Amino acid sequence: MKRLITVAAAQLGPIQKAEGRDVVVARMVRLLEQAHRKGAHVVVFPELAFTTFFPRWYVEDLDEADGWYEQTLPSPATQPLFDAIRRYGLTCYLGYAEIAHEPDENGVLRKRRFNTSVVIAPSGEIVLKYRKIHLPGHKEFSTLRKVQHLEKRYFEVGNLGFPVVRAPVGPVDGVNLGMLICNDRRWPEAWRELGLQQVELTMLGYNTPAVNQENRGFEAHHLRNFHSQLSIQAGCYQNATFGVGVAKAGNEDGFELMGHSIIVNPQGEIMAMATSWDDELVVADCNLAMCELGRTTIFNFAQHRRLEAYQRLASQTGSSAPAVWQPGQGEV
Amino acid sequence: MKRLITVAAAQLGPIQKAEGRDVVVARMVRLLEQAHRKGAHVVVFPELAFTTFFPRWYVEDLDEADGWYEQTLPSPATQPLFDAIRRYGLTCYLGYAEIAHEPDENGVLRKRRFNTSVVIAPSGEIVLKYRKIHLPGHKEFSTLRKVQHLEKRYFEVGNLGFPVVRAPVGPVDGVNLGMLICNDRRWPEAWRELGLQQVELTMLGYNTPAVNQENRGFEAHHLRNFHSQLSIQAGCYQNATFGVGVAKAGNEDGFELMGHSIIVNPQGEIMAMATSWDDELVVADCNLAMCELGRTTIFNFAQHRRLEAYQRLASQTGSSAPAVWQPGQGEV
Repeated sequence: MKRLITVAAAQLGPIQKAEGRDVVVARMVRLLEQAHRKGAHVVVFPELAFTTFFPRWYVEDLDEADGWYEQTLPSPATQPLFDAIRRYGLTCYLGYAEIAHEPDENGVLRKRRFNTSVVIAPSGEIVLKYRKIHLPGHKEFSTLRKVQHLEKRYFEVGNLGFPVVRAPVGPVDGVNLGMLICNDRRWPEAWRELGLQQVELTMLGYNTPAVNQENRGFEAHHLRNFHSQLSIQAGCYQNATFGVGVAKAGNEDGFELMGHSIIVNPQGEIMAMATSWDDELVVADCNLAMCELGRTTIFNFAQHRRLEAYQRLASQTGSSAPAVWQPGQGEV
Repeated sequence: MKRLITVAAAQLGPIQKAEGRDVVVARMVRLLEQAHRKGAHVVVFPELAFTTFFPRWYVEDLDEADGWYEQTLPSPATQPLFDAIRRYGLTCYLGYAEIAHEPDENGVLRKRRFNTSVVIAPSGEIVLKYRKIHLPGHKEFSTLRKVQHLEKRYFEVGNLGFPVVRAPVGPVDGVNLGMLICNDRRWPEAWRELGLQQVELTMLGYNTPAVNQENRGFEAHHLRNFHSQLSIQAGCYQNATFGVGVAKAGNEDGFELMGHSIIVNPQGEIMAMATSWDDELVVADCNLAMCELGRTTIFNFAQHRRLEAYQRLASQTGSSAPAVWQPGQGEV
């Protein structure tokens, strides 16, 4: 039996540092209108969708950067987005910078900052929240870099795990929805945590610099997009899920972000791809029944996974050097 | 500083059920001669290299199938291969069916069967042994299948983990060598166990039917090779390792195995690919210094992995259904 939904990737073009939320929210509302006209049931926006990719800008005191974050969702500035979601009856993935006043791991109430995404229901209700776990980059100003990548400064590591929820989407009663954010897509651990919860639609937004500054002559520039798509395609195939990877793309104040947002099926095939560096909406009809094939055959986890052989995965953070073998030593 | 070795993928064409080890070993020796002429330092052979892919044939009593297995390595029949390895001074990956007389998990001495691979040093010494962990297929005769895939009947699950060893290869004093076998390549857990031991060269052989009999109309035939390469390329990129995936290819007694053996760099790029369904050797010059880039930046595990978020990976074998959300329920 088919379980068909139409999925939209709502890529955003660049947002300059000086631009306000009003401009961005108006652009996002236009993308929701397009999604409605194209018959979409679910729309995926990028990571940190309301602002420029601000972790490239250093601030000494984080409180000076509060303007990049949302203290409530919706706020007066973002309310038009929620109104449009309700008007068109869409399910929505939205990435934003979150300030939360909540207890830390020591139980002390603090102002905390996360790189966050939510699933919003057609009613405008927030269904599920995820906070980015694999924060790339660094915490202190780097004199070695031409562009900073201060995610480890601006955000704490997410503390909500990798949640999945089954919620209605369009005509389908229940779809298993999961979220990742940007760099998470490169980590098979993140995909597998979702796969172990039978995710069927994995939504993720990203802001990815078009050039790897640290390539040391080993990484051709064109590989940036290959690596992104390779990771998403492998994650989808190996966990039998549809995936939607959505960029903020183009030139922000002289710094280029890659585009090529994609919708991928559980076979790892790219079904649709954005090809501009601008606001662009691409859609694909996704039959969620496809997820069953992998889940019940080659990736039937219950039949094939072998926990006793995976003990390093969840007990050893960094890598360690292997034993050294010398000629004449015999079998290790 | 460059750490350069020349790697060879030694694809084998088909081996018919009626063919003996003498024929196969002679073919493998010719491939070693070619590898020597092409300046290779390490040669990778397929899974179960000495025989046809026998798990497609049902036997009621496994003892009748002992002829498919090696009881010692080398044996008189396989000695010429070891002689050639010594003659040319090559490091070698070899897959074979192993009978071992050793205690089981209850301490009872038994005749045990594994799908095994070894690293052989240029001296002919066996350096490291691996026994396949992700056995695909089924244990009992299936009346639903046109072709059987009885790996779970013919073999026990490997009991040696995913070992890595640092050994001399050609002109390089120490190379971190790891092994996988066939279906293991689809499992990111397996690659990560190797990555956590700083693997630099991941060697794997396979026998993969060219058609997925269970595709239910969802998997185009050409995706078989795409899935194999996608998994190997993602595994290499995400663990900053070179990879060599080597097929037994072609038509065995009417059953087709896919080819397209590949050598992949730590960027996930295919450096060389076999394009026949026959015995074929392809080589690539691999600078092991390339492994440092991923390992010290984007995949610096110590800096970026988050064990507290990976608790399902090593504690939950099968998948479980997520929580169900209904409109009006509020945030999960």
